[in-house]
Amino acid sequence: MNTSFFGELLNSITEQGRALLDVRIGRKDDLPLLDLCEALLSGRGEASGVAIAEQVLDNYRTLSVEQKQGFFFALLENFGANLDAVRDAAKSLESEPDEPSNIRRLHAVTEPRRQELIRRLNLAPGGTRALVDMRADLLDLLSVHPDLRDVDRDFEHLFSSWFNRGFLVMKHIDWSTPASILEKIIRYEAVHEIDGWDDLRRRIGLEDRRLYAFFHPALVDDPLIFVEVALTRDIPAAIAPILAEERAEITASEATTAVFYSISNCQRGLRGISFGNFLIKQVVEELRRELPGLRTYVTLSPVPGFTKWFKTELALDDSVIDRLLSQDAVETIRDGSWRGDDEAEKQLQPLLTSLCAHYLTREKDRKGRTLDPVARFHIGNGARLERVNWLGDQSPNGMAQSYGLMVNYLYDLRYIEKNHETHAASGAVAASSSVTKQARVVPDRKQVQSAS
Amino acid sequence: MNTSFFGELLNSITEQGRALLDVRIGRKDDLPLLDLCEALLSGRGEASGVAIAEQVLDNYRTLSVEQKQGFFFALLENFGANLDAVRDAAKSLESEPDEPSNIRRLHAVTEPRRQELIRRLNLAPGGTRALVDMRADLLDLLSVHPDLRDVDRDFEHLFSSWFNRGFLVMKHIDWSTPASILEKIIRYEAVHEIDGWDDLRRRIGLEDRRLYAFFHPALVDDPLIFVEVALTRDIPAAIAPILAEERAEITASEATTAVFYSISNCQRGLRGISFGNFLIKQVVEELRRELPGLRTYVTLSPVPGFTKWFKTELALDDSVIDRLLSQDAVETIRDGSWRGDDEAEKQLQPLLTSLCAHYLTREKDRKGRTLDPVARFHIGNGARLERVNWLGDQSPNGMAQSYGLMVNYLYDLRYIEKNHETHAASGAVAASSSVTKQARVVPDRKQVQSAS
Amino acid sequence: MNTSFFGELLNSITEQGRALLDVRIGRKDDLPLLDLCEALLSGRGEASGVAIAEQVLDNYRTLSVEQKQGFFFALLENFGANLDAVRDAAKSLESEPDEPSNIRRLHAVTEPRRQELIRRLNLAPGGTRALVDMRADLLDLLSVHPDLRDVDRDFEHLFSSWFNRGFLVMKHIDWSTPASILEKIIRYEAVHEIDGWDDLRRRIGLEDRRLYAFFHPALVDDPLIFVEVALTRDIPAAIAPILAEERAEITASEATTAVFYSISNCQRGLRGISFGNFLIKQVVEELRRELPGLRTYVTLSPVPGFTKWFKTELALDDSVIDRLLSQDAVETIRDGSWRGDDEAEKQLQPLLTSLCAHYLTREKDRKGRTLDPVARFHIGNGARLERVNWLGDQSPNGMAQSYGLMVNYLYDLRYIEKNHETHAASGAVAASSSVTKQARVVPDRKQVQSAS
Amino acid sequence: MNTSFFGELLNSITEQGRALLDVRIGRKDDLPLLDLCEALLSGRGEASGVAIAEQVLDNYRTLSVEQKQGFFFALLENFGANLDAVRDAAKSLESEPDEPSNIRRLHAVTEPRRQELIRRLNLAPGGTRALVDMRADLLDLLSVHPDLRDVDRDFEHLFSSWFNRGFLVMKHIDWSTPASILEKIIRYEAVHEIDGWDDLRRRIGLEDRRLYAFFHPALVDDPLIFVEVALTRDIPAAIAPILAEERAEITASEATTAVFYSISNCQRGLRGISFGNFLIKQVVEELRRELPGLRTYVTLSPVPGFTKWFKTELALDDSVIDRLLSQDAVETIRDGSWRGDDEAEKQLQPLLTSLCAHYLTREKDRKGRTLDPVARFHIGNGARLERVNWLGDQSPNGMAQSYGLMVNYLYDLRYIEKNHETHAASGAVAASSSVTKQARVVPDRKQVQSAS
Repeated sequence: MNTSFFGELLNSITEQGRALLDVRIGRKDDLPLLDLCEALLSGRGEASGVAIAEQVLDNYRTLSVEQKQGFFFALLENFGANLDAVRDAAKSLESEPDEPSNIRRLHAVTEPRRQELIRRLNLAPGGTRALVDMRADLLDLLSVHPDLRDVDRDFEHLFSSWFNRGFLVMKHIDWSTPASILEKIIRYEAVHEIDGWDDLRRRIGLEDRRLYAFFHPALVDDPLIFVEVALTRDIPAAIAPILAEERAEITASEATTAVFYSISNCQRGLRGISFGNFLIKQVVEELRRELPGLRTYVTLSPVPGFTKWFKTELALDDSVIDRLLSQDAVETIRDGSWRGDDEAEKQLQPLLTSLCAHYLTREKDRKGRTLDPVARFHIGNGARLERVNWLGDQSPNGMAQSYGLMVNYLYDLRYIEKNHETHAASGAVAASSSVTKQARVVPDRKQVQSAS
Repeated sequence: MNTSFFGELLNSITEQGRALLDVRIGRKDDLPLLDLCEALLSGRGEASGVAIAEQVLDNYRTLSVEQKQGFFFALLENFGANLDAVRDAAKSLESEPDEPSNIRRLHAVTEPRRQELIRRLNLAPGGTRALVDMRADLLDLLSVHPDLRDVDRDFEHLFSSWFNRGFLVMKHIDWSTPASILEKIIRYEAVHEIDGWDDLRRRIGLEDRRLYAFFHPALVDDPLIFVEVALTRDIPAAIAPILAEERAEITASEATTAVFYSISNCQRGLRGISFGNFLIKQVVEELRRELPGLRTYVTLSPVPGFTKWFKTELALDDSVIDRLLSQDAVETIRDGSWRGDDEAEKQLQPLLTSLCAHYLTREKDRKGRTLDPVARFHIGNGARLERVNWLGDQSPNGMAQSYGLMVNYLYDLRYIEKNHETHAASGAVAASSSVTKQARVVPDRKQVQSAS
Repeated sequence: MNTSFFGELLNSITEQGRALLDVRIGRKDDLPLLDLCEALLSGRGEASGVAIAEQVLDNYRTLSVEQKQGFFFALLENFGANLDAVRDAAKSLESEPDEPSNIRRLHAVTEPRRQELIRRLNLAPGGTRALVDMRADLLDLLSVHPDLRDVDRDFEHLFSSWFNRGFLVMKHIDWSTPASILEKIIRYEAVHEIDGWDDLRRRIGLEDRRLYAFFHPALVDDPLIFVEVALTRDIPAAIAPILAEERAEITASEATTAVFYSISNCQRGLRGISFGNFLIKQVVEELRRELPGLRTYVTLSPVPGFTKWFKTELALDDSVIDRLLSQDAVETIRDGSWRGDDEAEKQLQPLLTSLCAHYLTREKDRKGRTLDPVARFHIGNGARLERVNWLGDQSPNGMAQSYGLMVNYLYDLRYIEKNHETHAASGAVAASSSVTKQARVVPDRKQVQSAS
Repeated sequence: MNTSFFGELLNSITEQGRALLDVRIGRKDDLPLLDLCEALLSGRGEASGVAIAEQVLDNYRTLSVEQKQGFFFALLENFGANLDAVRDAAKSLESEPDEPSNIRRLHAVTEPRRQELIRRLNLAPGGTRALVDMRADLLDLLSVHPDLRDVDRDFEHLFSSWFNRGFLVMKHIDWSTPASILEKIIRYEAVHEIDGWDDLRRRIGLEDRRLYAFFHPALVDDPLIFVEVALTRDIPAAIAPILAEERAEITASEATTAVFYSISNCQRGLRGISFGNFLIKQVVEELRRELPGLRTYVTLSPVPGFTKWFKTELALDDSVIDRLLSQDAVETIRDGSWRGDDEAEKQLQPLLTSLCAHYLTREKDRKGRTLDPVARFHIGNGARLERVNWLGDQSPNGMAQSYGLMVNYLYDLRYIEKNHETHAASGAVAASSSVTKQARVVPDRKQVQSAS
């Protein structure tokens, strides 16, 4: 940690900042915010914890952005572990390293006091909601103030426990769901925007369309994550027909394939707490029970990092792209002139498809995981990359992020665990034979490098 | 910890015990129980956590008591903190004691691995229920195997967080409540037994009787704690009229007093997680809103430790009792002959009442807290000891535990916090002036001692 | 109608009775009861119908039995059709018999005014409940005052329309049903008494026991009729094993047979409105959908009229019994000495069984319908008499009403309509071949008569 | 009835029409539609009524408009009263006119058989919904085929009984109501169109806006009628501020006035069954209980017949308008040039207001009731005409139907009954003194006539 910077900031809190945080919201016995926090952690909190927690949260809500920043730095500095106690406990352990109670004590005293503070704030009615919102504020500050990551870790740790999958409830969202929830679905959809209530109705009110969400009892009526499902007769190659205003509806029993075409996280304050994996698997269970005719569970997914990778790769001296694409082809891609040019499209289709298969199956991040974030999620869950679809998403966004390519990840319950383990162990990406073949068209980077 | 004993036990686990725990419940890919636990904690658990957690819990349920004991000792020994990692982290801290990340790391590595294990077991459907039951098993073993207290601490720590008051839902239980919940109320009532459905109906189906319970969303249909309330016109002095089969019902709006006459914890596996304090206060809030005519919130409570204290005290050389009671009186109390003897009762009433007032306000445990457990709960919550009632509970149990005395604790929201703080600071017990006067009749122990 | 009796009674109403009914229940603008009824029918009722209807019903509830009788006679006399209007309309019809509007007018004016009165009373909150209770009062009076049957017809006519099967809702009653409904089930069970909550739980809380009820939205929480079902592996021959406290429970999916072993009507005020037929058929539908393994739908029913018929028959000169039973056998039946006498039981079994088969299939009432009321219900619904069970009900009641015999009626959806029609047309009773054979042992009455 | 026309039509049914109606929808044992109806009325219907009723309704749904017309004429002709039975019963009555059973019998046989047919059709699941839709079809045909009014009378009679206020349930519709109901609210609003979901939200999702609806249990999720309420601080004079997108919301407790600004009937098939009166009064009750601060219950209503009356009146020789308005003024009204002309508006305001007050309080229809339909509804319910509002509705529709005038009807529970009775007796319209004064400016028609 950059202590000098922090020291400075701390000063600003101790000197001016205290005043900043001296917010009282008008109750007779109001204390300044940080004193209230101390009171909540003290014995006094035991008798009137609910009331004090409520006061802290009400108080927090009235803060300006600047004051909130001050509050979080106070959490960082004033509500960490008690250093003296840590030292004492460390010494005891040193002298008696095998005594279990020494480890236990060390664990206890190294816990930042703000963890207990957050637990006690949760006593207030609506406390969980307020704490999730508080963390959303904190996340906004993290990029500018990375020091606060330590505070965020405590929120994340507690939220992981509180939002454990065992406490989540899956609900089927349909046209008989209260409007107050539905308007949130409209607002939260992050992948393929929902264009108003008529569009929503097409996604939840028809027999071959489903939407499932996870809820937590403490965040009533506010979904954590939801997934949209189309029931079809085939694995789809493009998103437009799925979202079309006019299309032939099928009955649920005619469907053989469940397509997960959109997954949206709803609560910014729960970033890093993972639900999607569990949701997809529970939806698969639910659909299997309800519709025995379903054979195939598959996604229709974007490739958000393809264009970016393509451009970065192109800039390399020993780019794998140069081996595949002529300078002309690269130029038409650069200036977008290939779009609408039948000849060019025909020529580019196998090449871009292969490059995408290569990108998804072979390109890794520094930790050896698949580079593309959506691929990382599904491959990490144990899915298999099944197919790369040419011009699957011709929307401006689709063209911009992946030259219009979309892919299908297949969830085959028999292989999920094996795929997950293989990827975790070696970074290897499970892929269908056709995708593997397409990727092989692209020379391996090592070959490229050794050749160059 | 008695390591030699533990070492021995450990052997029994490593050598024979492994076999004991090698329980597979018939799924194709079943592993022995402890291997399943390791799998759940490993990377593999990320892909199929729900399924493995389910397997562990199903598996656990099939264990014999002996096997369960083996399982808990395995949790103690094999799923504690990684000692090497602890040593490393302790060293880092030693060299750089001011580096926050060192404390953080030390906190992380000192966390027993079983905490994460418990969190992941909670992924299974019904996992919370199963874990609460598992802890009930563990508590049964604690008296014989106090070593297991370390395992219990981890359950307790997580349950404190999961059963935070912010996640509890209060419900009014009445005659329209499902029978499946009501039968649990009958079974769980611990203070004044409910004698079948007709008795239950008298306690929840009439206008001047209420029952409120806390529920947790993960333990559907199973209350955590409940409190029974009588709406009356006066502070009651005895329990029999409250529970009477025949009595004059009043309308809710005629009531001026809400009497908490029974509080029962329902889940043995949640021992030590405190709900009663919050429940009473939320019921007070609820009743205030609904019935503005209510002025007084009061308990009608047993004094479970009075007889026991009386007998212990009596055995002392410098007993405070000797100063008050003649040898004859003591004798009639000992042999029970005072009961039904009008003269004796009349004579004993002021003396026993004063002794009880003394017992509740002045006798402390080693930590300086009120000796009587029920008094400790209510005084600790900030209530005031309002009145001692002669022959308030003439049931055999009432006579046995407190010579029939009952007391009222008064919840006055204006003084709750102050009372709580005073008690926390000095052990002083808030009491009405009449109770204080009654207690003063008994010579202070110091006076007794200095005199003797 | 005995007009002189009626005239007299009418006098008692007009002269003293008015006073009797002059009940005002303390609202400022209270009118006597009958004036309120007139007000409700008048224009005034349009503006404040709800309030007046409420007043009439409140008022009615305060009446003594004597006053209620007066009220019903007032309904009979004062709230019938307007005779002058009837005469006029009849004349118009006479002059123009083909004019449809004349028939329509005649229909309108012949409707008793009390029908509209009852409809308007239903405006009050809780009106339907009050009217059903009112009719229960009326039914009590009918045996003594058969004149009131005309008033009852109007209740019956309206209730038939209001409690049309289209307005009924079937609900599965189980252990999660509110206690307030369950206590009614206990109270209403009319065939095999439910002995408290534990017995109830055995009938609704186990996997192989079901209870279904019809509800009407205006009688919230109060069932109209319910049927109890046992899921078994065979057609049962006796009731005791079905109701046994200790027995081997089977899973629902193991069952092949659904046994309707008890049907109870709950609302005395709805006598004559038929629900049982619809309920049984809807339960069959429901069970078929849920449990495809069920093959057989059958009742286990009492034969409530057998003993009575036996004794009546015996008293005849040309009794069919004389041909079958020796004087000795008759004697042991008369004095009950056959019970417990193995030899006698063995001898009587085929004879009594045959007589019962004869009684159920051949003995008819004056309208040519099956004599036994339970048989009439099931055979009328299209069921088939499947089996006569020796000593199926050895309870005192069972022995008294049918010498312990019970029977099974089989509901085979393929034949229901045909069976119903045949019975409606000719009175013929559908029966299995074995029952038919058993009945044939008994000489036909005609044979008996021609022989005698 | 035009019998020759009818005779002809009947032929077309008997000869060709039979074929028309010979619709079978593919079940094995399907009968032609009318035969199914006869089967339903026959004994056969008792055993399998539910199934046959379902078949009839399914069958009906497949009919063309032409076939439906044929079906209704068949109901008219073939399912009326049995004429022979009517004649017999009429003769019996003639010979014994005082015998009650004769009247009863006459009532029974004069009931058209289609009434029982409709009752039995209601046995089918969803029967009530189907019958309400069937009547909507019938109402469409009535203007062209007034003969069918006789059939409609039977639907109306039964619906009046089935949709009795006692069977209706009022619900508060808000933003947590299922979208499937809300979209119906949007569709059904008939007075001030709801412009999509955002507009709906402004009408139901804010603290000072309410919407209440009546539901019938057999028409699940489909409202019968609803009323929209604004909570305000004053009696409003115009609709635009009520519906404005941007406006200052007040808290419910600040409101003193509840404004009913829109009432919409939802089910065309229930025309003539009156709910509005009951709904308004129940909403008043509900709001009084919830918000004791409310003092005034008032409508903001259109005057749909004013312009029409004005033009008709103007065409009369002795028009009351001529006495008030100059020829020029009349001309500017005719050509619309007064709008936007401040001088003209200022001049016309008192005159048009007075004419409107006159129109509403004095102009009657042939039955002596208030001419304006909205006035007739509210005055008939016992409300008082409180105020005429100049330019209260400046929408094109508002200008067209009433020159922009709107009015307030006041519901004062103390006077409702009296107002209703007075109007029922004499046609007199309850009005505030200011409205009465405004009306008096217009010379009475009699004065006009006597003067002319």
